[in-house]
Amino acid sequence: MAKKKAARSSKARPAKKAAGKGAARAATRRAPVETAESLGKKQRDISVSEFFLKNRHLLGFDNPRRALLTTVKEAVDNALDACEEAGVLPEVSVDIEQTGDTRFRVSVTDNGPGVVRNQIPQIFAKLLYGSKFHRLRMSRGQQGIGISAAGMYGQLTTGSSTRIYSKVGRTAHCIEVQVDTRRNKPTILKDEPIDWRPEFYPSRDGKPGKAIVARRGTCVSIEMEAAYVRGKQSVDEYLKQCAIANPHLQSYYRVRLITNGKDDEVPKKTGKKKAAAPEAPAPDVGWSFFERVSKQLPDQPNEIKPHPHGVELGTLAQILKDSTARTLRSALAQDFSRVSSQTAQKICEAAKLNPKANPTRIAHQESEALYRAINATKLMRPPTDCLAPIGEDQLLLGLKKEINADFYTAITRPPAVYRGNPFQIEVGLAYAKPGENEDLNADNPVRLMRYANRVPLLYMGGACAITKGCTDVNWKAYGLSQPRGAPPVGPMVIMVHIASVWVPFTSESKEAVAHYPEIIREIVYGLQECGRRLAVYLSRRKREEEVERKRNYMVLYIPHLALGLKQILKLSDRQEKAVVKNLNQMLERTHLET
Amino acid sequence: MAKKKAARSSKARPAKKAAGKGAARAATRRAPVETAESLGKKQRDISVSEFFLKNRHLLGFDNPRRALLTTVKEAVDNALDACEEAGVLPEVSVDIEQTGDTRFRVSVTDNGPGVVRNQIPQIFAKLLYGSKFHRLRMSRGQQGIGISAAGMYGQLTTGSSTRIYSKVGRTAHCIEVQVDTRRNKPTILKDEPIDWRPEFYPSRDGKPGKAIVARRGTCVSIEMEAAYVRGKQSVDEYLKQCAIANPHLQSYYRVRLITNGKDDEVPKKTGKKKAAAPEAPAPDVGWSFFERVSKQLPDQPNEIKPHPHGVELGTLAQILKDSTARTLRSALAQDFSRVSSQTAQKICEAAKLNPKANPTRIAHQESEALYRAINATKLMRPPTDCLAPIGEDQLLLGLKKEINADFYTAITRPPAVYRGNPFQIEVGLAYAKPGENEDLNADNPVRLMRYANRVPLLYMGGACAITKGCTDVNWKAYGLSQPRGAPPVGPMVIMVHIASVWVPFTSESKEAVAHYPEIIREIVYGLQECGRRLAVYLSRRKREEEVERKRNYMVLYIPHLALGLKQILKLSDRQEKAVVKNLNQMLERTHLET
Repeated sequence: MAKKKAARSSKARPAKKAAGKGAARAATRRAPVETAESLGKKQRDISVSEFFLKNRHLLGFDNPRRALLTTVKEAVDNALDACEEAGVLPEVSVDIEQTGDTRFRVSVTDNGPGVVRNQIPQIFAKLLYGSKFHRLRMSRGQQGIGISAAGMYGQLTTGSSTRIYSKVGRTAHCIEVQVDTRRNKPTILKDEPIDWRPEFYPSRDGKPGKAIVARRGTCVSIEMEAAYVRGKQSVDEYLKQCAIANPHLQSYYRVRLITNGKDDEVPKKTGKKKAAAPEAPAPDVGWSFFERVSKQLPDQPNEIKPHPHGVELGTLAQILKDSTARTLRSALAQDFSRVSSQTAQKICEAAKLNPKANPTRIAHQESEALYRAINATKLMRPPTDCLAPIGEDQLLLGLKKEINADFYTAITRPPAVYRGNPFQIEVGLAYAKPGENEDLNADNPVRLMRYANRVPLLYMGGACAITKGCTDVNWKAYGLSQPRGAPPVGPMVIMVHIASVWVPFTSESKEAVAHYPEIIREIVYGLQECGRRLAVYLSRRKREEEVERKRNYMVLYIPHLALGLKQILKLSDRQEKAVVKNLNQMLERTHLET
Repeated sequence: MAKKKAARSSKARPAKKAAGKGAARAATRRAPVETAESLGKKQRDISVSEFFLKNRHLLGFDNPRRALLTTVKEAVDNALDACEEAGVLPEVSVDIEQTGDTRFRVSVTDNGPGVVRNQIPQIFAKLLYGSKFHRLRMSRGQQGIGISAAGMYGQLTTGSSTRIYSKVGRTAHCIEVQVDTRRNKPTILKDEPIDWRPEFYPSRDGKPGKAIVARRGTCVSIEMEAAYVRGKQSVDEYLKQCAIANPHLQSYYRVRLITNGKDDEVPKKTGKKKAAAPEAPAPDVGWSFFERVSKQLPDQPNEIKPHPHGVELGTLAQILKDSTARTLRSALAQDFSRVSSQTAQKICEAAKLNPKANPTRIAHQESEALYRAINATKLMRPPTDCLAPIGEDQLLLGLKKEINADFYTAITRPPAVYRGNPFQIEVGLAYAKPGENEDLNADNPVRLMRYANRVPLLYMGGACAITKGCTDVNWKAYGLSQPRGAPPVGPMVIMVHIASVWVPFTSESKEAVAHYPEIIREIVYGLQECGRRLAVYLSRRKREEEVERKRNYMVLYIPHLALGLKQILKLSDRQEKAVVKNLNQMLERTHLET
């Protein structure tokens, strides 16, 4: 405490000067010269909440528009993860309500298993807290930051708190929390039982249908400074792309903007309600509805142990230190994947270590020998049941549903490994005939849709490995034009999905995949495979067009030919018609044979 | 503890299955279905060290080559900050020594004030700890992560610890620390007094000069997996660019690679020593030397209080809560910049709050009214003595020293503000005559050198606001060619420096500036100003070339003209010579007049 005070008083000094006397004079004055002692006194802990509050652009809260999207994204990701882990077909509603000129309340409700009461404060108001960080298993969330950060942003910009409703079993709770940013701990402002159930309102032909009431679920509601803008980086687009990659998801969406006469920005979703009083809106009005097209939940991936080849020396030592096993051999077999007892024995022999040694002792002294022995030993690649790719069929389904095109193809690459983490690349491609799809201009760069663990990535495309992979492919070889160092040009949508137990994002906002060479290579392979199929289609289409052109050309001559024959051979009109018919048939046969 | 155990045992289950029975069978088995309770038990704290260990690409440790640069960068930045704050002209040595195929030891020594002994473990082995985060003042470091992260990376890849020598006053200490990543706390492995002084070895004409021995200083030494590669993103380039922006810095640099016959990668810096035994290298051999060109330390910027207009509602409440002032009025005047007692009074009146109210009470209840009143009040812009730009003269000096060109210009923009943080943009430009500088090809994109708070940024150029600004400028208007959406093309170097109390980097590795519109705008203005000067130069050069061409053309005719006149007018040879001379003089006069 004494230290802190000292730091603060010495901090206050220069500023007092500046405030007290004329700023112009203070400007020319130098800050006091520091010594090791005075510098030492200024050293302080930085809480992770303070850090991210100051660096909120790292989390995707750098502008009001993106803040809205990031909040929806974090909440929907959590909802989907929870539903899938509990084996429930997800229903998720997103309700965006304007509460002031630049203020919105975002509420996301799901029919998942709910959150037990004593975990709510930490899950929703403590950064770096969660269940997904320490396991190796594909899921949307992985950091334990997102939703707490959204709440922290709301709190920063409006002073309000995050409200959570949760129903687990028979009881429901309403809890309001804030982040104590100095200590990165939750502050509970309200905690009371409540009579609440998650309700969803499907709409058909614009009219509200029968409400779906779930037995369990969670609703998180955050008020924040934000901006609602439609377009390529909007909540609308996010939910649409989400529906493509998650055909088992049923989602509900409404936006209620404040209408004040001149405002023509109100989407039709607000229906017939004008200037809805925000206090008591009709719960069932104004929802749009993305219906689920598949009742099959994605396979639930298994959790795996780290693969020895992807583990660094320091991590190896840490794992051995933490091991509950009594001997080195059993620690290797138990705490890593793809290491049988026999393999463990072999590794120990190669490292000249006693297989019955205490793993904790090894961690401190001989981990380097062990590390080398492990990396010199051949092992099976990591198990891949920790991944749940979308699958080629579902990819095609999604593309066909959303994109009006002439040619579709999709592939799921076999799993690969970067830094010991299994990952899998999927690529889908939809090519429209030029001019047949308004959204796809043949003179513009192709539209690239990026996904990571089934989550659409809408921002930071330039920094993403997926964009890099798409640029690295030589698309000219497949019949597309491509400016140097840029993606190809054409009426085409490319969709790339990376599924991994740990997607290496370039920042905490999780919008771009880092440039690991193994990942880029797999993306390139996937795109090349699709590109080859595209090339076959394009050259066939070209040939067909050529034949068609020739055929049309010849069809023009048939009547003249028949007339000539008629005059030379003195044919009757009937014979002339027969000649025309025969010639046409011959042409068609040739056409079919080509 | 009980919670942790439960989480671990339930985690272990699926993996046991996979290991015990055939993996093929396990692959088809689904993970167990979760409930709110089982999910709740898996929730855990994530330490910030664990987080960054897994996300080490965020800190700039994604590949061995970059890891080396990042480590040098963090250590040199800290050294320069410490020297400048203590008012010492900096001497910094960077010693890179290969210790294995892919292992290097990086040691950075400075003549700064040193670090007091009890702060060493936390500064060098605890993430989010430092003196620069909580103050508003331009400095190279700002996060309290960098050097600890470098040590953590060394520990992860080699198991070794960070070694620090520090001399403060009479005593020197040698301390070895590691990061306890589970708890984000330092573990001290060695701590003993030592007889040590920082020594620097200037070299002249390849021969070691007289050693410079400093009275105080720090040396940090880290062993890590790394790769030494020269080029645009190398340590060599970093130090060179560093010397441009820091003319007061004297730096020393050596790289000692393991030589094994076939290795031709050894730089000449290793001198005549062959296969130097890493245990006892001669201390004075092999240094290259960047001599200081200015003995003037940059102005030491002052620390400022936050400006009210850049403070969000939540932060305002937090500041009021933490205030030591007794009344709202004095809290406003004391804890913010540019708020006098009178202005504070006005703000209170506008917000209809009692100026004598307790600030803590206001924080809880009426901060929103206050927030609005503040934002409706006109205030002076934040003070800018917290910034220390390089200055136009020094910029030109640096460019002229390093870049061989024909035209140089530089400007320092007036300070501006983003999110309440003052910042200042400086732009320098050097244009070489095509073909006169080998490094600058007239057909390639211009070379863009990016700086933030005097630190060169070598990675992630694509994601940087500086690149964006450079691309946004219409360079065609200034006589350069520019592909659509790309930087201009030409034999030119553009240098852009942003100085700010808080540079908004796109990631913790601090290699790219985030896209704040205010920042991009200032960069564009700066570039346009330089561009206009370039246009004047280019059009003058073009005109000169044109005149020159015409002149040469006419010079060709003068003898023939004289000959003609001689024949017509029957002139003597002497008269003919006089005519040639007169015509030449006339031509030169015209040339001078244009």
